[in-house]
Amino acid sequence: MKTPFILINIFTVTPDNQQRLVDLLTKATKETVKSMDGFITSTLHRSIDGTKVTMYAQWESREKYEDMRRNATASPYLEEALSFAKFEIGAYEIVEIFKKA
Amino acid sequence: MKTPFILINIFTVTPDNQQRLVDLLTKATKETVKSMDGFITSTLHRSIDGTKVTMYAQWESREKYEDMRRNATASPYLEEALSFAKFEIGAYEIVEIFKKA
Repeated sequence: MKTPFILINIFTVTPDNQQRLVDLLTKATKETVKSMDGFITSTLHRSIDGTKVTMYAQWESREKYEDMRRNATASPYLEEALSFAKFEIGAYEIVEIFKKA
Repeated sequence: MKTPFILINIFTVTPDNQQRLVDLLTKATKETVKSMDGFITSTLHRSIDGTKVTMYAQWESREKYEDMRRNATASPYLEEALSFAKFEIGAYEIVEIFKKA
């Protein structure tokens, strides 16, 4: 099996905006991203301290993820998110998965 | 089921040190962390651009993770890692998991 392309995208916000960002990213994922070609799965996280929202996503390939980012329908949500959140993208490959011994 | 405690710990390095850090974190996880009480699973990632190594880990609770951090046997590896890498911890809870529609 081909290794998935992993995105760990971190949004930084003020705590009073954390829920608003969670709602926007949930909407974007449900309405557009999750039906796109190449998407496998993603997990949305809120930081305990209230200042971050992080999306951990698996895509079949980097190319398919970049196609999605260019797709117009996802953009209004991301644009709104970027009006009040700082966004840091992280593109990875998996080295190893460890399970409880 | 209780929600797991999620750690997304990001190490920043120079690209020539990325493999050294991967090796250290692999050793630390295999030799000590994965047999500890409260550890569920973790996935080690290397960034495509060579500048980051990120550990995504699930623990049963925040308390059990903090017990591990205080455990002396894991420290020499982390100390060595911190001699050449910048470390940023992220403590999260899962909001939602999305699957391909």
